[in-house]
Amino acid sequence: MVDLTQIMDDEVFMAFASYATIILSKMMLMSATTAFYRMTTKVFANPEDCVTFGKGENAKKYLRTDDRVERVRRAHLNDLENIVPFLGIGLLYSLSGPDLSTAILHFRLFVGARIYHTISYLTPLPQPNRGLSFFIGYGVTLSMAYRLLKNKLYL
Amino acid sequence: MVDLTQIMDDEVFMAFASYATIILSKMMLMSATTAFYRMTTKVFANPEDCVTFGKGENAKKYLRTDDRVERVRRAHLNDLENIVPFLGIGLLYSLSGPDLSTAILHFRLFVGARIYHTISYLTPLPQPNRGLSFFIGYGVTLSMAYRLLKNKLYL
Amino acid sequence: MVDLTQIMDDEVFMAFASYATIILSKMMLMSATTAFYRMTTKVFANPEDCVTFGKGENAKKYLRTDDRVERVRRAHLNDLENIVPFLGIGLLYSLSGPDLSTAILHFRLFVGARIYHTISYLTPLPQPNRGLSFFIGYGVTLSMAYRLLKNKLYL
Repeated sequence: MVDLTQIMDDEVFMAFASYATIILSKMMLMSATTAFYRMTTKVFANPEDCVTFGKGENAKKYLRTDDRVERVRRAHLNDLENIVPFLGIGLLYSLSGPDLSTAILHFRLFVGARIYHTISYLTPLPQPNRGLSFFIGYGVTLSMAYRLLKNKLYL
Repeated sequence: MVDLTQIMDDEVFMAFASYATIILSKMMLMSATTAFYRMTTKVFANPEDCVTFGKGENAKKYLRTDDRVERVRRAHLNDLENIVPFLGIGLLYSLSGPDLSTAILHFRLFVGARIYHTISYLTPLPQPNRGLSFFIGYGVTLSMAYRLLKNKLYL
Repeated sequence: MVDLTQIMDDEVFMAFASYATIILSKMMLMSATTAFYRMTTKVFANPEDCVTFGKGENAKKYLRTDDRVERVRRAHLNDLENIVPFLGIGLLYSLSGPDLSTAILHFRLFVGARIYHTISYLTPLPQPNRGLSFFIGYGVTLSMAYRLLKNKLYL
């Protein structure tokens, strides 16, 4: 039987595991942030969520949209759209035997750019803060995809 | 050459593979549920989807939103937002050599909580059914993330 | 220490890595397409994105929704909802020792169907082009899930 814990002895894979866990935990924070804004501003999407604030017609006034809540939801969706490719491509890239320092540079840039993207989106900071951080994360993922396809293409 | 099928001999990994496949299949059911509601209530998002029900202006009345369809779509998006971190963190956690019974407890709790979340969302059950099932799944993922970062952090 | 680059010597895994990278890169193109449509039609979701086109009240008129932009966003979300299960189930399936030609058939069908789905969605082509390509991708993923659960179920 193979000893799977050996996989975690690989330094590139361990680095990927650490950065992937950090950025996924950050993404999970967006759910908590949405819930927090919904509670504090009393803005809900489901009738059953606002029964504590009133019954019947009285409850319906809480079924609305709010700029702050929608902003967090857009940031969350943007995270999903960008972190899913990073996870998939990054995992395969980590297994393709890249140089340790190059790999860590990719992971750090991506995680840093996505954290800055969230800050830019929620503050909000003026453009091009959010645009630039988006494109850095985007470019990092494409760079890993390019390296994977260049070395290991098998169709 | 490494024999990859050995990886599947690892019991924790096999358990992860089983639970991950089950919860992803459940998530895929949400697409079918959305399609089913769209067909039965004739509520569509694209003009080309409703040409069988009428042409021109007559077709446009089917381009609308509906509470039931939007509810399924919200449940589907919530699934995505929570199952993606579970997949990423759970995969890495499975490779980090956890105790078999602890790992299976995590996987079972997550899958059970997410299935109950869908039932609560679509019935809908009164709160805090949905809220609690959300937080159980959330907590399970954070618990795996914590264990990963505690043991294997490499930045 | 295990040599991780050996994993990439496995032909099924290499094929999965190639197809997964291609379809994730295609999905990333959707972000660029959304940005392109937003720029050319001047349709934005955030006030800070349209300050270059005017200040104050003048900028607010760019905060609107547009059919083309919403169409790309729906296609993008549909990609996410289908590519995430493919990635998770496909990765585990690749590790479960399938027949090489069967595995490649699965991957090719999925990637082809999803590319055709995007073309059908954005052109848009009349139904059932988009519906059929959706169900081919859906069926491929379920077929891999079935094979996984049949051979390797461990609950």
